[in-house]
Amino acid sequence: MNRNVDEVTAPLPELNPMNWPRRFATRTTQMKRSTIRELLKLTAQPDMISFAGGLPAPELFPIAQVQAATNTILNRHGAQALQYGETEGLAELRDWIARQSSRPGLPLTRSNVGIVSGAQQALDLIGRVLLNEGDKVIVENPTYIALLSAWRPLGIEFLPAPCDARGICVEDLEPLLRQRPKLLYTVPNFQNPQGTTLSAERRARLVEMLRQHDVGLVEDDPYHELRYQGDSLPSLLELDARLASPGGPENNVIYVGTFSKVLAPGLRVGWVVAPEEVVDKLVQAKQASDLHTSTLSQHIIYELVRNHLLEEQIPLLRHAYRERRDAMLSALEKHFPRGTTWTKPDGGMFLMVTLPTEINATDLLQRALQQKVAFVPGEAFHLHGQGQNTLRLNFSNAAPDKIEAGIRRLGSLLDKPV
Amino acid sequence: MNRNVDEVTAPLPELNPMNWPRRFATRTTQMKRSTIRELLKLTAQPDMISFAGGLPAPELFPIAQVQAATNTILNRHGAQALQYGETEGLAELRDWIARQSSRPGLPLTRSNVGIVSGAQQALDLIGRVLLNEGDKVIVENPTYIALLSAWRPLGIEFLPAPCDARGICVEDLEPLLRQRPKLLYTVPNFQNPQGTTLSAERRARLVEMLRQHDVGLVEDDPYHELRYQGDSLPSLLELDARLASPGGPENNVIYVGTFSKVLAPGLRVGWVVAPEEVVDKLVQAKQASDLHTSTLSQHIIYELVRNHLLEEQIPLLRHAYRERRDAMLSALEKHFPRGTTWTKPDGGMFLMVTLPTEINATDLLQRALQQKVAFVPGEAFHLHGQGQNTLRLNFSNAAPDKIEAGIRRLGSLLDKPV
Repeated sequence: MNRNVDEVTAPLPELNPMNWPRRFATRTTQMKRSTIRELLKLTAQPDMISFAGGLPAPELFPIAQVQAATNTILNRHGAQALQYGETEGLAELRDWIARQSSRPGLPLTRSNVGIVSGAQQALDLIGRVLLNEGDKVIVENPTYIALLSAWRPLGIEFLPAPCDARGICVEDLEPLLRQRPKLLYTVPNFQNPQGTTLSAERRARLVEMLRQHDVGLVEDDPYHELRYQGDSLPSLLELDARLASPGGPENNVIYVGTFSKVLAPGLRVGWVVAPEEVVDKLVQAKQASDLHTSTLSQHIIYELVRNHLLEEQIPLLRHAYRERRDAMLSALEKHFPRGTTWTKPDGGMFLMVTLPTEINATDLLQRALQQKVAFVPGEAFHLHGQGQNTLRLNFSNAAPDKIEAGIRRLGSLLDKPV
Repeated sequence: MNRNVDEVTAPLPELNPMNWPRRFATRTTQMKRSTIRELLKLTAQPDMISFAGGLPAPELFPIAQVQAATNTILNRHGAQALQYGETEGLAELRDWIARQSSRPGLPLTRSNVGIVSGAQQALDLIGRVLLNEGDKVIVENPTYIALLSAWRPLGIEFLPAPCDARGICVEDLEPLLRQRPKLLYTVPNFQNPQGTTLSAERRARLVEMLRQHDVGLVEDDPYHELRYQGDSLPSLLELDARLASPGGPENNVIYVGTFSKVLAPGLRVGWVVAPEEVVDKLVQAKQASDLHTSTLSQHIIYELVRNHLLEEQIPLLRHAYRERRDAMLSALEKHFPRGTTWTKPDGGMFLMVTLPTEINATDLLQRALQQKVAFVPGEAFHLHGQGQNTLRLNFSNAAPDKIEAGIRRLGSLLDKPV
C-alpha cells in the first residue's frame, strides 16, 4: 500500500537559514516531524477509514479516457510529448484555459496563462517572486496548510483574518489592511479546511477594498467545479477586472487553478491566470525551479479537455461527492454529541467540526486511530496555536457507508471523553 | 512548431527582492529578457540548424515502449498512477535507484533516494535548503547556466574555479577553499558547457580536499551514461564514501541524476542520492514546492527500467551521439580557421569552441542566425563576463549531415570577420 500524502502535513519549520553540516549526515539537525504527521502515517493501514487526506475518489478517475488520450498522443506526436517543452506550458492548453476563463470585461489570452506542476507550485512561485522577508500577508484563519508551508520559510508575517460561515469577515478587514500587507490569500470556494464559501456581497466589497489599499490578491480556487448546491459565484479575478478603468491597471488578482480535483492529481498540472507581466516573472522563476511541467501530462490533459471530458466528469464527481457530503452531514447529526458544531459546505471536499473547547483534537486523533478512524486536527491550519478543538474531515475519498461507520466511531469516542 | 526551451537561457535577474506593484500589471518592472534569450527564439524556425539547445534526439525516444508501459500501468493499477503520491517518490523506483547506485563501501537504501521533477528541481531544492545569503559556492567557470539561475536569487557568491581539459584544476583550489565556501558544485562527466571530464586523479584529490575543508559537494551527473570512449570513472559520491571512517560521517556528497538524457526529458523525473537526513530535508522543501513529482511519469519510468529498457536504449544513444560528436569534430577540423580551438568530449552532448579573442560570439550569433545556424554564446555560462569569444555547440540534436552543413556555414562566417 502506498502512503499517499496530500497537502496536509505539518507546517514546515524554517528551512532557511540553517547551519551547514560539516558532513551532511552528522551536522544536519534532524528537523522534527510533527506529531500529526507521524500519526497520519498510520492512515495507510488498509482497514482505516480515513477522513484525513485531501484525496479525490480514485474509483472516479477517468482511467480509460486517460489511456485512450495517451495512446492518441503517442501515436500522433509522441516525440513532442516526450521532449523538453516551453516553461510557460503547452500553447494549446494555455489557449484553452484562456478561453475558458475569459469573461465579458476580462478578455484573456495565452499570455495571461502559465502552466504549473500543480497548484502548489503556483503558490510556491508566487511567494518566491513577490514576497520579501518582513512582508505581511492576510490569510483566512484557519487557512490552507500548504500555503503556510510554502510561504513561512520566506520570513513573512501572516495576518489572520476573522472568518465566519460566509468566508472572510470583510467588514472587519480595515485594521489588517492598515498594516500595509502586500497580499491577501484566499480560497473563496469551499475553503480548505473549513468548506465555507465567500458570499457574493463580500466578494464585491473585498476586491474594492484591496484596490483601495494597494493589496494584491491571490485567489486559490481548486474546488471551483465541485459545487453541490447553489449558484456558482463570480471569481474575484472577474469582479476585480470590472473595477479596472480604461487605460488603468488591468488586474489586481492572481488566480490559481488546477486539474487535480476534476481530472487526476497524479498528473500534476495546474495553472495561473494573471497579467502578462506577472506570468512572465512566474515563468522565469519556474524555469529555474523545474524547467517546465511534464510535457506528457500536459498533452494528456489537453487531449482530454478538448474532447470535452470535463463535461462528463464534473457531473459525475458532483453527484458522488454530494452524496458523500450528505452522508457525512447526516452521520454527524446522528452521532455527534451536543456542544459540537460543524460547517455545511456547498461544495468541495472538506468540512470542519468544532468540539467543546475542553476537548483536544490531537488527543482525540490518537484514540480515533485505535478505532481505525483518521482525520486531521484543525490546529495545523490555524495560526497562533488556535483551533485545538477543531477537526478537518474529508468526505470525497470514502464511500457513504464508510463515512457513516467512521463518523459513528468518532461520535462514540466523543460520548466518552477520557 | 514548439519553441522548445532547455536549460539554456539567460541567467535570471534577482527575483527577490523586488518592489511590489500597486497593480500587478502596472508597477511590476519589466524584467529585461536577455539578448541571447531573444535571439534563441529564432531557433524555432523550421529550416534552422540548431546547435543551441540541450535537447536529446527525439527520433531516438522509446515511444513504443513508453506507450506499452503506460497501457500496462493504467490497466494494472491506473487509479494509483493517477492519484496523489508520496513526496519522496515512488517506493519501487527509489529502491531501483538505490540498488543501481550502490557500490562496495556505499550501501544505499530507499531512504537515501529522493525523486524530483527533473534534475533542475534537485538543484533548486538543494539551494533553498542549504544555502543562505552571503554563502560562497565554488563552481567551474564556465558552469551550467541553470545552476546560476537557480542559486543566484539566493544572494550567494560564486567562486569561479579554474578549469582545463581535465576538469577543475584541483591543484589550484586551495585559495578558494580558504574562503570557507559551503559547497562546491560540479558536473564531473562531459560537463555542460565544456564537454570536459574530471580526471581520475583529480577526483580522488577533490573529495579528500573537500572533506579536509568541510566543504559539501554537489555532483550533477546528467550525462553519466552517455560515454563514447574511455572507461567510466567512479563517481565522487563513491570516492567520498571510501574516505568515511567507521562510525564517522558517512558522506559529503549530494549526487543528482536524471532520466531526461537516457529516456525522455518530457517526463520530468530525476533523483538525488544523499544521506537520509539530507533527503528528508529536501523532501520537506519539495512538499511545499510541488507536493510530488508526476505519479504517472514515475510509474512509466519504473515500468521501463524494470523491464531493462535502459540496456537497449543506452547503447543506441551512445552509437548515435558518438557519430554526431565525430561529425562535429571533423567538421570543425575542416571548416574552422586557425586560431580557433575546441574541446574534445569523451561523451555528453556539448563541446565548447574558443575563438580568437577579438571575435565576439554574440555578434557572431546574429550573423549565424541569418545563415540559419544557431548556437549559444559561451558568455552566459561564465562568471564575471568572461568567455565572450566562446560558443557552446550541442551535437546530440542534429543528424551528422546537418552538423556538417551547420559547421561549414559557421566556418565561412569566421573566415570573413565583419
